[in-house]
Amino acid sequence: MRISLFPATRFLKALHSHQFPYTAAASPRLFSSAAAAITVMKLLYPNSLKLDISRIEGFPTSLVEYDVKQLIPDEHLDAEALITWTNTAENLKDAAERMKNLRWIQSLAAGPNDVLSAGFDTSKIKVTTGSGLHDHTVAEHALGLLLNSARRFYEMRDYQLQGKWPGHLGGPQPDRPAGSFRTLRDARVLVWGFGNIAKTLVPSLLGLGAKVKGVARHPGVRMGIEIYGEDKLAELLPETDALVMILPGDPSTRHALNAKRIALLPSHAWVVNVGRGTSIDEDALADALEQGKLGGAALDVFEVEPLPESSRLWKTPNLIVSPHAAGGRPQDAEPLIVDNLRRLLAGQELKNLI
Amino acid sequence: MRISLFPATRFLKALHSHQFPYTAAASPRLFSSAAAAITVMKLLYPNSLKLDISRIEGFPTSLVEYDVKQLIPDEHLDAEALITWTNTAENLKDAAERMKNLRWIQSLAAGPNDVLSAGFDTSKIKVTTGSGLHDHTVAEHALGLLLNSARRFYEMRDYQLQGKWPGHLGGPQPDRPAGSFRTLRDARVLVWGFGNIAKTLVPSLLGLGAKVKGVARHPGVRMGIEIYGEDKLAELLPETDALVMILPGDPSTRHALNAKRIALLPSHAWVVNVGRGTSIDEDALADALEQGKLGGAALDVFEVEPLPESSRLWKTPNLIVSPHAAGGRPQDAEPLIVDNLRRLLAGQELKNLI
Repeated sequence: MRISLFPATRFLKALHSHQFPYTAAASPRLFSSAAAAITVMKLLYPNSLKLDISRIEGFPTSLVEYDVKQLIPDEHLDAEALITWTNTAENLKDAAERMKNLRWIQSLAAGPNDVLSAGFDTSKIKVTTGSGLHDHTVAEHALGLLLNSARRFYEMRDYQLQGKWPGHLGGPQPDRPAGSFRTLRDARVLVWGFGNIAKTLVPSLLGLGAKVKGVARHPGVRMGIEIYGEDKLAELLPETDALVMILPGDPSTRHALNAKRIALLPSHAWVVNVGRGTSIDEDALADALEQGKLGGAALDVFEVEPLPESSRLWKTPNLIVSPHAAGGRPQDAEPLIVDNLRRLLAGQELKNLI
Repeated sequence: MRISLFPATRFLKALHSHQFPYTAAASPRLFSSAAAAITVMKLLYPNSLKLDISRIEGFPTSLVEYDVKQLIPDEHLDAEALITWTNTAENLKDAAERMKNLRWIQSLAAGPNDVLSAGFDTSKIKVTTGSGLHDHTVAEHALGLLLNSARRFYEMRDYQLQGKWPGHLGGPQPDRPAGSFRTLRDARVLVWGFGNIAKTLVPSLLGLGAKVKGVARHPGVRMGIEIYGEDKLAELLPETDALVMILPGDPSTRHALNAKRIALLPSHAWVVNVGRGTSIDEDALADALEQGKLGGAALDVFEVEPLPESSRLWKTPNLIVSPHAAGGRPQDAEPLIVDNLRRLLAGQELKNLI
């Protein structure tokens, strides 16, 4: 922990204008008198994305960029805060061993499995996720996969590559025939996992005329949408044209969509997964597709990524492979960092705390 | 013209309860006294889609279904009204020659080129289009093509068919880098042709965070969107990430997007066409794509359909072929038919009149 002098009059001014919410009582170490020495916390931010650092300035922090593909340099092992994004496993493992002052890791990933498996002492270090930074990108990708499925763009592409006009997909069509998923208008869409991504997706679905229901651990009504508990899946799945899965990748969600539940879906139903690959039993899914017991599946996530060359999913009929492309672009990370930095310095509970 | 007795008391009741807006003054032929003979108009409706006939009953009409793939039977050549949908050219040509009492054709197509080229005497016959019946389907398809383009689903499919993981399209990505079209969020979308389809599409685009402008014959502000005249294209095209074309197929729109205008688009820009194929100079488009001067094109319509086997478009890079699949499913045709039937019987101007 480094001690340095801070321009006390400026600090007082900031305090009184509520630029940040310290109080002498909340942070006695930081502020003792108008001429006091101020504790400066070192925060390391990653070089793997473009952050607007000017937006996280103004705190008693020293902000240092670091390379996520290298080990943290010796002179910065004293940092107390670490922001991570696409760090190598070596970087994280080394940081876990050698950064003895660390007390906060802000991952920009929605599910920071990399940080959690690196060996950090989470009894001392608060880990916060980037939940909320990927809502727009993942919701847009999910919508795109739903339309790719309903509008059969993947099948059109197969024809195009053979120089053939897929006449059966164009021209006059029956309008919303029963037992089909060809449009979102009046389609019964079930969103399983109803967090921020779902909340961002739902307005688009409703705008296109879909009938949306949700499934989550906590039932209730959110955004005017009825959310059911998982105990209601047996009733909900048979009345679903498109199932959108946005579940996190923890042991409790492993194979949440298994053979038994797949069998409850109508044979024309589609499954879209933008959560984590482990939440689907891939072999059960492939079996159902090969046997024509399911309409199709558009998967952005897989049990093993990249999808191995030997996987049967490459050639499973009506299965769309998307290479974990939904997110990967944290948006508006700065306000989250600022919010958590403020809370940390004030001794308050952090946002997105694991 | 067939004359029959109509239950006059029921008719009067309908009149007074405003079920339809006839007045004795507006339709003297139809209504002379409470015990009068009522003129019944024969209306032929097509067997090529499912219409809820109960919703167009209640008029002094005799409603007869006909087969759009056969010639109109002799006994129905006296019909005064004809609803068309996917009629054969032979059916229409024969009808134009032999249906001497015809005074109204309601096409359910947005652009009834088939009816217009069949030889009907349009000085005597009012032709109305199905404009408005395809808004949802075409808007949804346009949105799907935009997301297919931005999210590169077509390229992912190419990789999938080879059993290869397109790693460059997934994982961590730069967020909205300048000079790219990878998301609708903050994308500058220019909608050329600002009728009902555009108005249905715009809320979805705005909901996903796009910055939308329009181009139409009549400039102004619609739905909060600035609509410019075509004279402003030279200024608008260079500031466009995605151009959505929804122009009708008449001589005035032929090659509206020509080599000169394509050259004004940024080299990363995409073109989506769900209007008519004639509005794009396809060779100029293919040249630009082959030379890397344009990001891509997603076309649902072509100058010749089906796209001939010999067309260079099958293999043009970053070109998506969709087989005229956007519309083809008239939705909610009954209220339009009812509205125009009412207007016809009342001697008023019809909706969607050509």
